[in-house]
Amino acid sequence: MDSRSFLYDWIMDVNVPLLVPYEARETYIQNYHLITKGSGHLMLFAGDQKIEHLNDDFYGSGIHVDDNSPDHLFRIAAEADVGCLAVQLGLVSRYGADYPDITYLVKLNSKTHLVQTEQKDPFSCMLATVEDVIRVRNTGNLKIAGVGYTIYLGSEYESEMLVEASQVISEAQRYGLVTVLWIYPRGKAVKDEKDPHLIAGAAGVASALGADFVKVNPPKKEGANSAELIREAVSAAGRTKVVCAGGSSVDVDVFLQQLYDQIHTGGCAGNATGRNIHQKSREEAVRMCRAISAITIHDASVVEALNIYRGV
Amino acid sequence: MDSRSFLYDWIMDVNVPLLVPYEARETYIQNYHLITKGSGHLMLFAGDQKIEHLNDDFYGSGIHVDDNSPDHLFRIAAEADVGCLAVQLGLVSRYGADYPDITYLVKLNSKTHLVQTEQKDPFSCMLATVEDVIRVRNTGNLKIAGVGYTIYLGSEYESEMLVEASQVISEAQRYGLVTVLWIYPRGKAVKDEKDPHLIAGAAGVASALGADFVKVNPPKKEGANSAELIREAVSAAGRTKVVCAGGSSVDVDVFLQQLYDQIHTGGCAGNATGRNIHQKSREEAVRMCRAISAITIHDASVVEALNIYRGV
Amino acid sequence: MDSRSFLYDWIMDVNVPLLVPYEARETYIQNYHLITKGSGHLMLFAGDQKIEHLNDDFYGSGIHVDDNSPDHLFRIAAEADVGCLAVQLGLVSRYGADYPDITYLVKLNSKTHLVQTEQKDPFSCMLATVEDVIRVRNTGNLKIAGVGYTIYLGSEYESEMLVEASQVISEAQRYGLVTVLWIYPRGKAVKDEKDPHLIAGAAGVASALGADFVKVNPPKKEGANSAELIREAVSAAGRTKVVCAGGSSVDVDVFLQQLYDQIHTGGCAGNATGRNIHQKSREEAVRMCRAISAITIHDASVVEALNIYRGV
Amino acid sequence: MDSRSFLYDWIMDVNVPLLVPYEARETYIQNYHLITKGSGHLMLFAGDQKIEHLNDDFYGSGIHVDDNSPDHLFRIAAEADVGCLAVQLGLVSRYGADYPDITYLVKLNSKTHLVQTEQKDPFSCMLATVEDVIRVRNTGNLKIAGVGYTIYLGSEYESEMLVEASQVISEAQRYGLVTVLWIYPRGKAVKDEKDPHLIAGAAGVASALGADFVKVNPPKKEGANSAELIREAVSAAGRTKVVCAGGSSVDVDVFLQQLYDQIHTGGCAGNATGRNIHQKSREEAVRMCRAISAITIHDASVVEALNIYRGV
Amino acid sequence: MDSRSFLYDWIMDVNVPLLVPYEARETYIQNYHLITKGSGHLMLFAGDQKIEHLNDDFYGSGIHVDDNSPDHLFRIAAEADVGCLAVQLGLVSRYGADYPDITYLVKLNSKTHLVQTEQKDPFSCMLATVEDVIRVRNTGNLKIAGVGYTIYLGSEYESEMLVEASQVISEAQRYGLVTVLWIYPRGKAVKDEKDPHLIAGAAGVASALGADFVKVNPPKKEGANSAELIREAVSAAGRTKVVCAGGSSVDVDVFLQQLYDQIHTGGCAGNATGRNIHQKSREEAVRMCRAISAITIHDASVVEALNIYRGV
Repeated sequence: MDSRSFLYDWIMDVNVPLLVPYEARETYIQNYHLITKGSGHLMLFAGDQKIEHLNDDFYGSGIHVDDNSPDHLFRIAAEADVGCLAVQLGLVSRYGADYPDITYLVKLNSKTHLVQTEQKDPFSCMLATVEDVIRVRNTGNLKIAGVGYTIYLGSEYESEMLVEASQVISEAQRYGLVTVLWIYPRGKAVKDEKDPHLIAGAAGVASALGADFVKVNPPKKEGANSAELIREAVSAAGRTKVVCAGGSSVDVDVFLQQLYDQIHTGGCAGNATGRNIHQKSREEAVRMCRAISAITIHDASVVEALNIYRGV
Repeated sequence: MDSRSFLYDWIMDVNVPLLVPYEARETYIQNYHLITKGSGHLMLFAGDQKIEHLNDDFYGSGIHVDDNSPDHLFRIAAEADVGCLAVQLGLVSRYGADYPDITYLVKLNSKTHLVQTEQKDPFSCMLATVEDVIRVRNTGNLKIAGVGYTIYLGSEYESEMLVEASQVISEAQRYGLVTVLWIYPRGKAVKDEKDPHLIAGAAGVASALGADFVKVNPPKKEGANSAELIREAVSAAGRTKVVCAGGSSVDVDVFLQQLYDQIHTGGCAGNATGRNIHQKSREEAVRMCRAISAITIHDASVVEALNIYRGV
Repeated sequence: MDSRSFLYDWIMDVNVPLLVPYEARETYIQNYHLITKGSGHLMLFAGDQKIEHLNDDFYGSGIHVDDNSPDHLFRIAAEADVGCLAVQLGLVSRYGADYPDITYLVKLNSKTHLVQTEQKDPFSCMLATVEDVIRVRNTGNLKIAGVGYTIYLGSEYESEMLVEASQVISEAQRYGLVTVLWIYPRGKAVKDEKDPHLIAGAAGVASALGADFVKVNPPKKEGANSAELIREAVSAAGRTKVVCAGGSSVDVDVFLQQLYDQIHTGGCAGNATGRNIHQKSREEAVRMCRAISAITIHDASVVEALNIYRGV
Repeated sequence: MDSRSFLYDWIMDVNVPLLVPYEARETYIQNYHLITKGSGHLMLFAGDQKIEHLNDDFYGSGIHVDDNSPDHLFRIAAEADVGCLAVQLGLVSRYGADYPDITYLVKLNSKTHLVQTEQKDPFSCMLATVEDVIRVRNTGNLKIAGVGYTIYLGSEYESEMLVEASQVISEAQRYGLVTVLWIYPRGKAVKDEKDPHLIAGAAGVASALGADFVKVNPPKKEGANSAELIREAVSAAGRTKVVCAGGSSVDVDVFLQQLYDQIHTGGCAGNATGRNIHQKSREEAVRMCRAISAITIHDASVVEALNIYRGV
Repeated sequence: MDSRSFLYDWIMDVNVPLLVPYEARETYIQNYHLITKGSGHLMLFAGDQKIEHLNDDFYGSGIHVDDNSPDHLFRIAAEADVGCLAVQLGLVSRYGADYPDITYLVKLNSKTHLVQTEQKDPFSCMLATVEDVIRVRNTGNLKIAGVGYTIYLGSEYESEMLVEASQVISEAQRYGLVTVLWIYPRGKAVKDEKDPHLIAGAAGVASALGADFVKVNPPKKEGANSAELIREAVSAAGRTKVVCAGGSSVDVDVFLQQLYDQIHTGGCAGNATGRNIHQKSREEAVRMCRAISAITIHDASVVEALNIYRGV
C-alpha cells in the first residue's frame, strides 16, 4: 500500500474544514490522526492548569509530591503515550526537546483565578500566537498537532474571546493544525453553568466557529443522568466533536464509568483529563492514562479499563 | 445570446456601488443575481442563530428534533433552493464541501443573548474577516455570494459596530460580494425598538453606509398597519433595499400574508426567515421555503403560496 | 492662457499646507478651487444628517415628502450647482455614478443621537478611510474634492477624535484633498456650547490641526450680536477658514441676513446648510441654494439673494 | 576649517544617545546645535497652548490684540531668532513656508482643559506622528529640529502616555530629531504637583526614557528657594537636561531673575516660555525673547537682560 | 581548545528554549553565560526603580548623595563587574557608550507608584520594544544580554501584562536574548502578597510562559523559615530559574545570610538587588556587589562574603 492510497483512506475518514487550504490538507489529516491515534477520538491530558489554578492543583494535601514540578507532566505523557498533552507554549519550548515523542496541543490562552467573577467577569487572553507555535514546532521538529483556546460564554468579555477564538481557528487551520475549544458559560449573567441546554448552546457555538473539538463540562440537572443530558450538546455540535471534562478528583472506578457513559451513552468523542491523572505518582498516572485511553480510543469496557489501571 | 451581452443586460439592472472596483464589477453582478435569483428580491434563510440564541431556537418543545443538528439547515437549503443560506463561516467551512450548490451569505458577527441590555449594552463583534470568507470560497469552490453584519443602533457600542460594518462593506465590495446589514435599535437608550420612525432611521443608516440590503424588524404602532408603516423605511433607504424579519413563529398563513404585505404594500425587497423554516421537519421546511420564494421571487399570491406550502 | 500659467495664478491665491506633498500640490489647488468655485468661499450643502439625526430631519411635519429619499439631496445638488454636497461615502458609492457633476465632500465620521450626553459623552467614530474615498473617486471618476470630520471638544472621548481628525488631515492632504472639521464643544464638562470664547477656542484647535476649513456653531451671548461675536473665532483660526452653521430651520429672509452678517461682519468664509435646504421641495431648495451661493460666493446683497430665492 | 573637522568638534560636545542610529548621528548633532544655538542651552518659545488652554491665553483682558492670531507667534519667533518655536504640526504646515528661518519643535500631543481632573484624569494623546513631521520638514525644507510630548505622571492614563512618549523618543531619535518631554505630576492621586521630590522623580523618569530635555514646573516648598529646590531634579535627570517653566504672567524683572536663578543656582539648561512672551505686542515680545536668550544662551546677567528688554 | 568545542561544552550546560530559533542558539548561549558569568546563577543589580519609586530610592535621609545621579549606577556596575545591570533603555541609550563593559538587561516595562491599588489595580506597560533594544545594542556594540518584564498577578490588568510578557519572551528569544520576569501578586483581589503557595503559583506562571528567570519576593508565613518556604516555588518553576528579591534595606550581615539561605536552603539561582547596593557610596556599593557575587556566583560562605564586603 503506497502512502498516497493510505492518505486516500485517511481522507475518506476525516471531515477537512474548508478553512484548511489545499496545500495544508495532508498536514491537517496527519495531525488529526496523530492526535486521535487514528480513532477519531481524543484523549487529551490537560497540563495547562499552572496558570488557571496557579499551584493549587500541583502542591498540597492529597497530591503526589512529584506533581509540583512540570517535569512530572512530560514524564507521564511520554510514558503513557497519551492522545496529546495540552500545555502552554512556554513549557513546550523548555521541555519539548527532551520529550520529542509526545504529541502536543498548545493551549494558547490562560488566566489566573485570582480575580473572581464577583469582581470582574472572566477574560482569558491569548498568550501565544499560532506563528509562535509553528516556530517552536519547526525549531524542535516536534509533533505539535493542534492548538486550544478557552471561551467564557456569557462573560462581559465574551466578544473579545469569540473574536480571538475565531482568529485562532482561521490561523491554525491555515497551517493544518487541529483546533480544540474549551467553552464554559461563566460570568455575572450565568446562573447555572451546568445547565444542559446552555451547554448544548456552547457546543453549538463551537460548531458555528468551525472548531474540530469542543470541550464542555458535564451537564447536570436534578434527577437526570448526566451522560444522557449531554446528547443535546453532541447533536447541536454537528461536525464539531464533543469531549467532556474529567472535573475534580474522584475515585477511579467512578471516573472511568462516567467516561464510558459520556462516550457510549452521551455520544462524546473523548475526554480531557488533568488532575485525575497528574496528582497521582508517575507510575499510577501512567496506568490511569492507559485506562482512559483504553475506553476512549480502544473501545474497552469499564472492567477492562479498571484492570489496566490496577495493573492486573 | 453570448455571455457578454447577457452580462450587459444584467449590468443594466443592477446598481453597482462605486466601492466595487472595476475588476470586481462582473463578480458583483453575478453575485447579486445569484443571491436574488435574478429577481432583485432576496429570500434569505437565516441559519445564524446558533450563537445569537444558543440552542433555544433549535431544541425544545414545538421544535422538530432534526433541528438540533446543523445538518438540518444545509439539507433544507439544498433541497429548497433558497436565495441564500446565512450562517457563520465555521459552518460553511465544515459543511460547504458537501453542499456545493447552496448560495451562501456568511454572517460575520455574532453574540450570545446571555448578557442582557440591563447589564451591558449589546455589542456584536466580527468573528470572521472577508479574507477568511474568500479563502473558504476559493478552497471549496463555493457559491458564497455575500456577507452580513448586525448593528445595534443606540447601543453604547454603536460606534464600534458602525466602524466594523463600514469596513465590512468596503472590504466585501472590493471583492464583489453583496452586503446585508441587520440593523436593530437596542440599548438602554432605546425606548421603543419597533417605532416606525426609528426603524426608518435605521434603514437610512444602512443607506449612508452603502449596504446592498438592510434587514429591519417590522415596525409597530398602536392602531396602524405594519406593512404601511414600513414605507417610510423603504423610502429612507434609497437604493439600499429593505428586507423584513420573519420574527417569532406564527401560523403559516399569517406569516405568508405578512410577507406578501411587506412586499406589495410596504415595498420591501424580500425577507429573512429563520425559525419559521428550520423548526419544522425537513420536508415541511422545504415546502415553507418554496412558498416564501414564490411570494418573494416569483410574484405569487398568498393563495398560490399557501397551496405550495400545503403541497396542493 | 495655457493651463500651466492658469495654475500659476491659482497657486498664488491658495495657501497650500506643507502636509500636501509636492506631487499632490496641483490636485490640492484644483480641489480647493473646485470646492470654493474659485472664490475661496465655501458653500457646503450638508446631507450627512441621515446618521446624526436618523430620519428626524427627513420625514415628518413641515418637511417636504421628497426629502425622505436620499435621491432628493443629489437632485438638488446637481441642479443648484452647490460648492459641495457633504454626505457619507456609502451614498456617494450608490448615487455618484448618476450624479457625476456634483462636487462631493465625504463626511468620514458619524454617530446617532440615540445615546445622549447624560448617558455617555459623545464620540463620533471614523466610518470610511481616506483610501476608501480615493477608491470611490477613482472608480467613478468623481469630483470628490474633500473630506470632513466632526470633533466634540470637551467630551471624555475628545482625545480619540482629536487623534482621528489629525490622521484624516494628514492622510487627506497627502492625496491633495481639502479638509473640513466640524468642531462642537459638547459633553458633561461643557456648560455653554455657544459661548463665543469657547467657540473661538474650537476654531483655534482646527488651526493647530492644520484644517482648511472649520465649521462652528454661531456664538451666542446675552445682548450681543452673533456676527460680531464670531470675529474672535475667525481671528483665532488664522489661516484655517471659518464657516458657520445654518442651524435649525428659520425664515428664509432671516436666514440670508444672518448668513450675510456672518460673512461681512463676522469674517466667515462660507456656510454649511442642511435642513434649511433639503426640507424644501426640490424646486424651492434649488432656489434656496442659489440664494445662499449668491451671498457666499458671488458677493450678492441680501435683497439680491432674496430675489433669487423668490425667483423674481 | 572644513565641515568634517567642524563636525568632529561638535561631536565632542554632544552626548549622542544610542537610539540615534549611525546614519542619523550628524543630523542629530546638527539639530542639537541648531535648537541650542550651539550653547547646549534651550530657549524654547511655547506656542502650543491653543489646544491646551483654547483661546484663554490669546484673547482677553491684559492680552495684546495681535495675540489672537497664530501669525503673531511666527512673527515674533522669526524676528527674535528664538532657540525654537514649539507648536503643533498643523500650524507649521500652514505657516512654515512663509517662515522658513525659524527653528521648529513640533509638539506632538495635546488636550483641552475642558474635562477637568475631578471628572477624569488627564490624558494627552498623540496627534501627529514623527513620519508626519518628517513629511512636512521635507516638503517645506524647514528647520524642524525636534519634537515634544507631554506626560501627566500620576494620571490613571500614565501608562498610555509613558508608552507613547517612549515610542516618540525611539522614532524621533531614529531620524536624528531632538526630543523634549514636558512632565507634570497631575491626577486624582497627586496631592502636591509642585513638590520638589516629586518633580525630581519626574525628571528621573525623563532620564529613564532617554529624552534630551525635560521641562518641569518650578518646585515649591514653604520657606524654600525654588531655584535651590530644583537641584534635586537636575541631578536626578542625569544626562537629560532640565528646562523650567515660565509659568503664569509675572513682571519682567521678576521673571528674568527667576530664569537666571533657575540656570545659575538650580543648574537648569534653559527655559520654556509662552504667555510671558506672546501676550505682549510683537515689538515688546521680541525684546522679551532677546532678554531671555541673553540669559539662557549668552550668559548675560539679569541687569544686562533687562536692558535688552527695555531697549536701552 | 577551539571556540567550537568550547561552545559545545557550553551548549551541554544550557537548556536552550525552542522559541530560540536555530540561527540564534549561539547568541542565546553566549548571552546566558555572559549574564550568569558562566555559573548558571544570576547576580542582577536592579537600577530600574527611577520610574517605579520615582526619586524615593535615590535621594533622602540615609541615602548617599551620589545616588541621586544615574551615573552612580553605571559607575558601580562597571567597577564591580556585576552579572548584569537592569535599567530602562533610555539610560542605556544615554550612558552605554561610556560604559561598554557592563552587561545589561533592559527592563522593558515600568510604572510609577503614584496611583495606588486602592484607586486602580496596577498595570505596567511596555515602554521599549525588543527591536529598540537590538537597535541600541547594535549602534553601541553593547553587551545587552537580556530583557525583563514585570507582571502584577491578580491585577484586573493581569491579562494585558501576561500577553505583553509572552510577546516579550517570544520576541527576545527570537534574537537570542535571555528573559527575566518579575512576578508580584498584587491588586484588590490579592489578600497576602507574600503567601508561599501564591508565590509558587507565580513561579509556575513564569514556567508556563517559558521565561529563563523569574524574580519573586521572598515568601513569608507566621513561624516558618522564608528560605524553606521558597522551595515550593523553585520546584514549581521547573526549568525557569528563581531569583529572589533583596527587598528593603537591611543590615549587610542579615542581607548576606538571607541571600545564602535563599540559594542553599531554598534552591534559588541568584538574586536581584537594588537599594541595598546603590544607596551606599560607590566604594561601599562595589564591595557590596562583590560580596553578593561571591555567594551567588562563586559559592562563597557568608563569612567569606562579609570579609569581602568589609575589605578584609
